[in-house]
Amino acid sequence: MYHNINAMLLLGRCRYLTRFGLLAPQRPQASAAAAWCAVRLVGSSSNSEDQRWERTGHGPNLRQALAGLLAGTGAALAYGLHHHKAEQTEVVSVQVQAQTSQLPVFSQEEVTKHRTLKDGVWVTYKGGVYDITDFISMHPGGDKILLAAGGALEPFWALYAVHNQEHVLDILSEYKVGELRAEDQKKQQSAPSSDPYSSDPKRHPVLRVNSLKPFNAEPPPELLSDSYVTPSAIFFKRNHLPVPQVDPASYELQVDGLPGGGLKLSLEELKNRFPKYTVTATLQCAGNRRSEMNTVKQVKGLNWGISAISNATWAGARLRDVLLAAGYGPDAARWARHVQFEGLDKDVTGTMYGASIPVNKATSEEGDVLLAYEMNGEPLPADHGFPVRVVVPGTVGARNVKWLSKITVSAEESGSHWQQNDYKGFSPTTDWDTVDFKSAPAIQELPVQSAITVPADGAVVSRGGEEVTVKGYAWSGGGREVVRVDVSLDGGKTWQVAQLRNGDKGQTPEPSPPPGRAWAWKLWEITAPLPPEARQLEIVCKAVDNSYNMQPDTAAPIWNLRGVLSNAWHRVKVTISDDEE
Amino acid sequence: MYHNINAMLLLGRCRYLTRFGLLAPQRPQASAAAAWCAVRLVGSSSNSEDQRWERTGHGPNLRQALAGLLAGTGAALAYGLHHHKAEQTEVVSVQVQAQTSQLPVFSQEEVTKHRTLKDGVWVTYKGGVYDITDFISMHPGGDKILLAAGGALEPFWALYAVHNQEHVLDILSEYKVGELRAEDQKKQQSAPSSDPYSSDPKRHPVLRVNSLKPFNAEPPPELLSDSYVTPSAIFFKRNHLPVPQVDPASYELQVDGLPGGGLKLSLEELKNRFPKYTVTATLQCAGNRRSEMNTVKQVKGLNWGISAISNATWAGARLRDVLLAAGYGPDAARWARHVQFEGLDKDVTGTMYGASIPVNKATSEEGDVLLAYEMNGEPLPADHGFPVRVVVPGTVGARNVKWLSKITVSAEESGSHWQQNDYKGFSPTTDWDTVDFKSAPAIQELPVQSAITVPADGAVVSRGGEEVTVKGYAWSGGGREVVRVDVSLDGGKTWQVAQLRNGDKGQTPEPSPPPGRAWAWKLWEITAPLPPEARQLEIVCKAVDNSYNMQPDTAAPIWNLRGVLSNAWHRVKVTISDDEE
Repeated sequence: MYHNINAMLLLGRCRYLTRFGLLAPQRPQASAAAAWCAVRLVGSSSNSEDQRWERTGHGPNLRQALAGLLAGTGAALAYGLHHHKAEQTEVVSVQVQAQTSQLPVFSQEEVTKHRTLKDGVWVTYKGGVYDITDFISMHPGGDKILLAAGGALEPFWALYAVHNQEHVLDILSEYKVGELRAEDQKKQQSAPSSDPYSSDPKRHPVLRVNSLKPFNAEPPPELLSDSYVTPSAIFFKRNHLPVPQVDPASYELQVDGLPGGGLKLSLEELKNRFPKYTVTATLQCAGNRRSEMNTVKQVKGLNWGISAISNATWAGARLRDVLLAAGYGPDAARWARHVQFEGLDKDVTGTMYGASIPVNKATSEEGDVLLAYEMNGEPLPADHGFPVRVVVPGTVGARNVKWLSKITVSAEESGSHWQQNDYKGFSPTTDWDTVDFKSAPAIQELPVQSAITVPADGAVVSRGGEEVTVKGYAWSGGGREVVRVDVSLDGGKTWQVAQLRNGDKGQTPEPSPPPGRAWAWKLWEITAPLPPEARQLEIVCKAVDNSYNMQPDTAAPIWNLRGVLSNAWHRVKVTISDDEE
Repeated sequence: MYHNINAMLLLGRCRYLTRFGLLAPQRPQASAAAAWCAVRLVGSSSNSEDQRWERTGHGPNLRQALAGLLAGTGAALAYGLHHHKAEQTEVVSVQVQAQTSQLPVFSQEEVTKHRTLKDGVWVTYKGGVYDITDFISMHPGGDKILLAAGGALEPFWALYAVHNQEHVLDILSEYKVGELRAEDQKKQQSAPSSDPYSSDPKRHPVLRVNSLKPFNAEPPPELLSDSYVTPSAIFFKRNHLPVPQVDPASYELQVDGLPGGGLKLSLEELKNRFPKYTVTATLQCAGNRRSEMNTVKQVKGLNWGISAISNATWAGARLRDVLLAAGYGPDAARWARHVQFEGLDKDVTGTMYGASIPVNKATSEEGDVLLAYEMNGEPLPADHGFPVRVVVPGTVGARNVKWLSKITVSAEESGSHWQQNDYKGFSPTTDWDTVDFKSAPAIQELPVQSAITVPADGAVVSRGGEEVTVKGYAWSGGGREVVRVDVSLDGGKTWQVAQLRNGDKGQTPEPSPPPGRAWAWKLWEITAPLPPEARQLEIVCKAVDNSYNMQPDTAAPIWNLRGVLSNAWHRVKVTISDDEE
């Protein structure tokens, strides 16, 4: 309860973190040794509360990198691999002890005076006053911490739920300098709830939640392969920030960067002025299958399984048509290189989510980029960008900006964190000490991908049936059509060719897409005899697209510090039981 | 000498092939067992003479497949893997024994009467008369054998040098029914030389020849990485047929398939009516690095090393411009799906080499498809398509039709053998018994590729230098830019990132290409410390393109019966010597 907070003493479990001195930046030898906390996820966690900060080695780039992560890439980043099952059940909670503080009491007015490095930076948290001046340069979230200077941490921590961990509180406790005056505490209490996620929509309970705030969740794999077009309710959710509430009546889409002053469109104008196109397209998060990279070596990011991918039918205006109406033409084509997008989802600094795509993708007739206002025949659900999102077929989910507010034609890529310092791939040798985000291109088209949805890893298959049915999905970026999926029951020694389909069973399949415009996945299935002697099967799948790109055999050589682009052969192990049923 | 031929008895070494009866199709049980010869290459052969036919198992598709091969895909197809070195030095030659034939003598007039299955099919070869009626259905080259009916085999065998092997002669000998009358033999002798390759151009002696007729050769790898733009003389040569001699003054390019009667262009018109564009583009044979697939399991095709890839600067008219001039427009776009090409290189039936590309690639401003008349600043060399070839950047070599004679806009792909029944990829499980060429798409864009040119496999590196320099090339199809090359010195356990360049050292590098238009390779290099204790290194490279496609780890899972698309990590083993020099 809040009235006990004044007496709270934050007791650390973070025994290895030495006190204040070690964290002080003015002692370089100590500061080099002092680690900032890397983030780890409890292996099978499906709840962002199961998060903890731990100390690991750090380097010059770790801070920047983590800053990026905290800036919304995945607030639920505190991930780890090697926790034992027993540890997974531990619930991290603040250790509260009733104890009278020996520290001075400050007024809010006094606290508010400390808002700069020169004057010192103070913050309050649950009745405590903290001088975090010396911590600023070590904050994984970078300078954003200054936004809280002189005020309460709570609204910021509400946005970035990663802070709600014991180790973070441990660190904070090092900086405590006093208590907030009781009447100022009461004022804070009476302020309206500042949980920015309070208006997030309800979600389907079947979803496996990777992070609650922001909401990130995926459907159970076996449901994915049941529907060629994924029902919107179980379509994977990947939010970087709280879901904005948008009034469709006052919604306005701004198109900028072109001579002539740009264009503003209401939702009705977008619907009525431009022909409506329908495109069935698969979206995949760059982090899909990240959990497999975690089995190689810990990475930073949401611990996605194999279902951060889904397929929907989108309808809306073509981006090309809107750009042409806004004045895009041969003149602009001479200097324009990118089309930038901004969403209405914003962080505490007011920074909108942003991304960009190459201008040729945006303006090509064959790019099929939509400003979508419908998903599966209905208005976009709130989690998927109501009222308008960009759908960039063949391109990583992160560029399919939701709650779209602004389109800018530019010579430059989006300057946003998500374009510049995230969603890029690196060599397995690159770590947070050596990473140079400028050295790698922003992910746009994704590589060929496939995974086994049925049976699940660890499943038991009865020998009674004498055969096993394996199901999955396969997709490739850039409109490259999947032309074959090979399935192995023996870990990759021998292969069989699966049957592909691009529609639901019993339905007339879609006609084959034109070259370079295969935006939707294929579902695949194979029923194969059980090898007579086998007690276990290692089932493997790999897909081939029509540029004959193949998936890499193993995850370690494509491992990267952010755990993106995880597309090695997918493997599941099943046991064969003699049980007749 | 020719005058001894009448007395020739072709003695077989093909002991396992039982005689006539076994090959007769009217005995199904025997015919099923009777194998037609699969083709094998002597491992390190660089000469098409080192070829032999051998018996292997066969199936319903083997004949068709081999027919395809013989139709020009690689006349030098008689490939094998496991010959001992000793065998490689054996020169296959016709065993001639002076022996008086006991067989009847026929006149050419009599032979000429046998030209149909009904009348019997007779042919002559070096003075012998053969009734091959029963062999027709077993001929790997299919019905084309009927073109020789009633006449001499020599002109056909001159075109398809694969026949010049002892085992083929063994088989032929089974069908001998008589001798050709001496005066008719003399007439054949006095006919002009019919070697269709006699006018092939001279080639650079440094080339490593995989097949002389047709000419197929690659440069030594270490030369490849010496020049960003490959000199034309050492640019890999991949001919399916004899090099046609074309008079530029009478050359005519026909554009067909569009309403309005089409367009005919002289070379001068092509040069003067259309703007000249210059594109630096890498071409790669689908069979590049096939030899590595042969180490997994024998495949059919030319035994290319790692150098069936080269980079040149091409100049010519844009195909797009020519198609627009010929009437291509929105009307045609509604039905057109492919643009077909025909070369002037033709086989004995008069069938031209042919291929097609998707119409969107052909007509897009960003496709950069050229009707090239210059290579590296000079008129196209004869081996590279003089006077005009298609250059389809980012697309497999086979579609870059040389000695271009005809362009056809069509709703259909080219019906040519090379489009329909060759240059396609299959699962490792697919063999010549089960292959269905209709089930796989024609190769167009190629997957990401890289290889190590220096050091060579088996090289000795001195420890004196304390470091090793590794060089190579990297490229991807579809205009996808190579963004990174990882190099390992320990077989793929740990990796380092190589330096890439897109120009020669000391030159200003080319500006970065627009997205999707990176047509040229990158050369790469890394100098790394020698691991202190290592006696051997297994050097490995793998490239990543900007769609983040990676190369597969190993060759076995991408093995395919034609040995195309061989793009697993490239590996070379080197020994470290303590020799200071």
